[in-house]
Amino acid sequence: MMTIVNGYEQSDREEHINVLNLESLEARAEKIIPKGGFGYISGGSEDNWTLAQNRKAFTHKQVYPRALANIDQPDLSANVFGLDLKTPVMMPPLAAQGLAHAKGEMDTAKAFAAEGALMAQSTYSSASIADTAAAGNGAPQFFQLYMSKDWKFNEAVIDEAKKAGVKGIILTVDATVDGYREADIINHFQFPIPMANLEKFSQGAGKGQGIAEIYAAAAQKISADDVRRIAEYSDLPVIVKGIQTPEDAELAIGAGASGIYVSNHGGRQLNGGPGSFDTLSAIAQAVNGRVPVIFDSGVRRGSDVFKALAAGADLVAIGRPFVYALALGGALGVQDALQEINHEFATIMQLAGTKTIADVKKAKLADFNY
Amino acid sequence: MMTIVNGYEQSDREEHINVLNLESLEARAEKIIPKGGFGYISGGSEDNWTLAQNRKAFTHKQVYPRALANIDQPDLSANVFGLDLKTPVMMPPLAAQGLAHAKGEMDTAKAFAAEGALMAQSTYSSASIADTAAAGNGAPQFFQLYMSKDWKFNEAVIDEAKKAGVKGIILTVDATVDGYREADIINHFQFPIPMANLEKFSQGAGKGQGIAEIYAAAAQKISADDVRRIAEYSDLPVIVKGIQTPEDAELAIGAGASGIYVSNHGGRQLNGGPGSFDTLSAIAQAVNGRVPVIFDSGVRRGSDVFKALAAGADLVAIGRPFVYALALGGALGVQDALQEINHEFATIMQLAGTKTIADVKKAKLADFNY
Amino acid sequence: MMTIVNGYEQSDREEHINVLNLESLEARAEKIIPKGGFGYISGGSEDNWTLAQNRKAFTHKQVYPRALANIDQPDLSANVFGLDLKTPVMMPPLAAQGLAHAKGEMDTAKAFAAEGALMAQSTYSSASIADTAAAGNGAPQFFQLYMSKDWKFNEAVIDEAKKAGVKGIILTVDATVDGYREADIINHFQFPIPMANLEKFSQGAGKGQGIAEIYAAAAQKISADDVRRIAEYSDLPVIVKGIQTPEDAELAIGAGASGIYVSNHGGRQLNGGPGSFDTLSAIAQAVNGRVPVIFDSGVRRGSDVFKALAAGADLVAIGRPFVYALALGGALGVQDALQEINHEFATIMQLAGTKTIADVKKAKLADFNY
Amino acid sequence: MMTIVNGYEQSDREEHINVLNLESLEARAEKIIPKGGFGYISGGSEDNWTLAQNRKAFTHKQVYPRALANIDQPDLSANVFGLDLKTPVMMPPLAAQGLAHAKGEMDTAKAFAAEGALMAQSTYSSASIADTAAAGNGAPQFFQLYMSKDWKFNEAVIDEAKKAGVKGIILTVDATVDGYREADIINHFQFPIPMANLEKFSQGAGKGQGIAEIYAAAAQKISADDVRRIAEYSDLPVIVKGIQTPEDAELAIGAGASGIYVSNHGGRQLNGGPGSFDTLSAIAQAVNGRVPVIFDSGVRRGSDVFKALAAGADLVAIGRPFVYALALGGALGVQDALQEINHEFATIMQLAGTKTIADVKKAKLADFNY
Repeated sequence: MMTIVNGYEQSDREEHINVLNLESLEARAEKIIPKGGFGYISGGSEDNWTLAQNRKAFTHKQVYPRALANIDQPDLSANVFGLDLKTPVMMPPLAAQGLAHAKGEMDTAKAFAAEGALMAQSTYSSASIADTAAAGNGAPQFFQLYMSKDWKFNEAVIDEAKKAGVKGIILTVDATVDGYREADIINHFQFPIPMANLEKFSQGAGKGQGIAEIYAAAAQKISADDVRRIAEYSDLPVIVKGIQTPEDAELAIGAGASGIYVSNHGGRQLNGGPGSFDTLSAIAQAVNGRVPVIFDSGVRRGSDVFKALAAGADLVAIGRPFVYALALGGALGVQDALQEINHEFATIMQLAGTKTIADVKKAKLADFNY
Repeated sequence: MMTIVNGYEQSDREEHINVLNLESLEARAEKIIPKGGFGYISGGSEDNWTLAQNRKAFTHKQVYPRALANIDQPDLSANVFGLDLKTPVMMPPLAAQGLAHAKGEMDTAKAFAAEGALMAQSTYSSASIADTAAAGNGAPQFFQLYMSKDWKFNEAVIDEAKKAGVKGIILTVDATVDGYREADIINHFQFPIPMANLEKFSQGAGKGQGIAEIYAAAAQKISADDVRRIAEYSDLPVIVKGIQTPEDAELAIGAGASGIYVSNHGGRQLNGGPGSFDTLSAIAQAVNGRVPVIFDSGVRRGSDVFKALAAGADLVAIGRPFVYALALGGALGVQDALQEINHEFATIMQLAGTKTIADVKKAKLADFNY
Repeated sequence: MMTIVNGYEQSDREEHINVLNLESLEARAEKIIPKGGFGYISGGSEDNWTLAQNRKAFTHKQVYPRALANIDQPDLSANVFGLDLKTPVMMPPLAAQGLAHAKGEMDTAKAFAAEGALMAQSTYSSASIADTAAAGNGAPQFFQLYMSKDWKFNEAVIDEAKKAGVKGIILTVDATVDGYREADIINHFQFPIPMANLEKFSQGAGKGQGIAEIYAAAAQKISADDVRRIAEYSDLPVIVKGIQTPEDAELAIGAGASGIYVSNHGGRQLNGGPGSFDTLSAIAQAVNGRVPVIFDSGVRRGSDVFKALAAGADLVAIGRPFVYALALGGALGVQDALQEINHEFATIMQLAGTKTIADVKKAKLADFNY
Repeated sequence: MMTIVNGYEQSDREEHINVLNLESLEARAEKIIPKGGFGYISGGSEDNWTLAQNRKAFTHKQVYPRALANIDQPDLSANVFGLDLKTPVMMPPLAAQGLAHAKGEMDTAKAFAAEGALMAQSTYSSASIADTAAAGNGAPQFFQLYMSKDWKFNEAVIDEAKKAGVKGIILTVDATVDGYREADIINHFQFPIPMANLEKFSQGAGKGQGIAEIYAAAAQKISADDVRRIAEYSDLPVIVKGIQTPEDAELAIGAGASGIYVSNHGGRQLNGGPGSFDTLSAIAQAVNGRVPVIFDSGVRRGSDVFKALAAGADLVAIGRPFVYALALGGALGVQDALQEINHEFATIMQLAGTKTIADVKKAKLADFNY
């Protein structure tokens, strides 16, 4: 059940797992992912205040049960960015999934494709763009760009992503320096496995480095001009990821962004910032439907998905739990987890009297706020 | 003290129990109700957030002590739906009481009748409508309907309820799909005992099924038209149960509802919804006296009864604690528990300077809200 | 160090105790006061929610440190009800102090007299009015009346109180029925020692009874007329105790009350009511200086005394801690505790830049309220 | 690793320490600083409510992550009071650092000088003004004055401070009596080491005294006139320390203060007062740029430094953690701690899109306040 790579014990399980709920996967995964890898995946920055706030923020809005709505069999399908998706739940561009499983992003892609859900690849993937795309077998994928200081690198990965047929570029702008992640410091964590997209430029790149070194090679100065440049070069929709204020959403849209991705990087960057969900509705109001809004950071329950959509999101990304599922069961595990969250979400939709995603987006949330 | 039914150990105690308070009965009952049954009764959905919020909501309003009111001997009697009741505390339509006691709903009915209090039967009762009515010995009862997809079933149970002399129909509309109840999943819970009202249609029905299967047989699409149809067929007052918004109260009244039952199903359905008490006053204001309001979900103390009435309820239902009392002492246990909550409520009435339920309903609550 | 009375071990210590702070006395006293007595003294009603809220309420207002006030040696002296007191801290009419100490109220009276502080006797004192007054040695005392259904009793105790020279009558109006005190129920608590003022009417009265029986003999119907009647009969200032709303303060003043005593009986009566401090400022604003305001319930720190005065009180009563001090050291213990709270209060006065009680009453509190 | 002075075990370590974060130093230092000294340094007054509130207050404002700001390499340099500083983090005038280390303030001064950061000496330093200034080797220092009742003392220390070249006088006004510090009471704490600046006037002064005695020798009446007198005598900028209200800031500026130092003495004086950060923005708005504002009390993280500057501070002082670092590693330890907080702060600056301290001061904080 384990492959040893550079001394790191990688799961290679391929089996169904019994998913009680997404939250419960963390404790199970902790038992099989090596300490350093688990710390990297699970940790936030500093004392994890914002990480915790990401969960807490959801408790301050509630979903009103609605009866007499005369509906059954909620329809989770979402059409966003011109893509026909079977669920608004998507996979965010989570790096280095080889830490959890030998097949890494390939298994994740396979699972999301099987469920008709959108997958985003990370620049810092363990698996290459082409391999991950192939595992997705034609299902829609996005490619996320950590912009390098070296523009040639950016062109090369965009070229490869286009060749692989990705439907959009997610440009991450909230990681111009590494958040101070204490778990990594305590564990002296360095990536044991190369990052495939970097390795093309320099053999073994990523391996033996910590996140600080990785981010140091990326661009630190990022401006609206970069959004425009990436959009022009790629001729693909560019979604700007890491937005937490209406002002930045405005800047991004002004520079030609085709989507706004509200995220605080799962509490891994600016600790002491708000819970991501707390920032969503003001941003969505500012965006006002001009482009789609993706949301992540802290989503664990079907009711969280509902709340995020009702607060203005069009797609809702969930990261860590799927990587835990990946470790526990490979592609089958990820599919199980995705089915579970879809089941929870469908239950909430039915009990809230909402037949479609459009209905969810019109639902009024309660705010008994204590 | 135990009867074994289909391998399930059912209490058959008939004795007085010492009720310190209603909350304290849960831990005592947990020792004698089998794990699966206890999990089914005590659990909410998902991580029990809304279940906990149901209790917490009460702490955000407070009862003002009133002195110099020149009263003694508070009068708890309530006249609602044309019924003369000795207390506004009623038994909600809690299913499958055979899980707690061999006599199930029959003992509960006996106890509520003895105390002059209103009892509601559930469609999914362990005991039949007729037997439960007979145990009530002429005391007023309501019958709750989980509407079946099979209209013939609905007609048959309504016919039987009318024959048994029930005074009203409670139509539950918040359970068009099963809330995701993790305790049942963990315990692989299936009802060990048939449900008498279902069994008439299909021998042994209910037995060996989980709540998901039970609810799947029920109607999932419920609309205002169903309220009207049930009212017309039954020619009885129809009270719509599971209302958490003014909008749904309006729909129900517009369709001829004779009562609004504010409830979130004891936190067993939409987890991530507000505490039920938090939703009460807005609904009661919308109803504005046109029909009576019943409230449940989270009531455990005399002061909670007071708060619910002051926030707009006319009757206040309490579920789980009476089922625990049933397990601990049968009808005598239920009576003890009902006397205890009535005693607490009478004490609060006196200390709040309220002589009658009408006075309670006019009392202003404090909201030192932190 | 112990006297055995009717099987109850009464402390008879007379020694200095080392008072770190008033809160710390409870755990120490619990070791020497018998369980039943300790439960009676320390407990609130029901689940002690209001008891806890009495403390929590103070944390939602804060005292602003003030510098550059050019003061030293704060002056704690208070002139209220025409009495010259060395501190605004007073002893409330706490019943049955014989539970804590053989000398009961006599030692308390001695200690408060020695410190120039006001003492209030309770109708349900272990020691008689005359004995307690004598122990006070001419220092001012109030007498608190639990009005009996038997008007002759009321006249008799008022006569005795007047004879003993008390300066005012505190009429308690928030105890027309006993709060549901679970500690007493659990401990099957009955007073082991007679109540001296009752015993004059019926030998051994109070002994062998619980609080429910004691209160049952008292008047349950109390109105503004009773305030007037007591004032007329006694020709003494009547202070109405147990006020938690502006409305009741208005009623009492309208009926001739000479003082308003804001209290929720230390959380022993209406559980589910607000923290007493939360109700103070609205009442004080309604009273608007027409009569003095006494405050109690939850005061433990010098900063609480400051906050209560700044929120509108003129005198601040503290109960349980002094009874614990009584158990631990008799009159000397009570004096030590009173000196400690005075020292804390004087420190807060200095650091808040307030030289006199009048300055404290003008201080603006902060309300960083979370 | 230890020097024994008057029976007190003083650390004399001079080594690099591994600083995970500033908060983590307390537990490590507790193992090497004697109990009495540790209690004095770490403790607040009474039950430490305000001490805890100092930390909690920061959680109620949050830093918005800002992307697309086109910046890198944040510049922490601050020019305040005409001083060129490499960081806005400064050392407050923390007394008796000999409790932590044999070199006390001299090592602290050395470390702050090495990092280009401002150090403030305390009147109650273990090391003399001249020795501490010499250790700073020409780097800017402030001298803090606890005003003595003996004006000659004040003149003498000011003379010595001027001779040592200090750039300003911090006049502490919030300690006109000792806060009630229970840890010191419990530990019977007396300073084991003389205070160098007092000792010049009276041999061994400070040694064998508790904080109450020390403060008793200081002036208790302090007014705006004293600010003026100190300013005139010293001809140096006078910064008034211990301000928690706009009113006191106004008084100080009116009397010629050159700076306002917002502090509640680290929760060591008026317990029951607000968290210091809660008071900052109102004061800064009142000051409105007329003079610089220094802030302390509760700062532990780079994000706290950011929040304090954004709320109106110009310099941010951190006390206890540097003294723990001093115990753990002498000057090298203090430098390590200072580098760590600067690193955290620089990270937050970058992630918040702020290139300079001026940018930080213009940043809008979020207030998702629960």
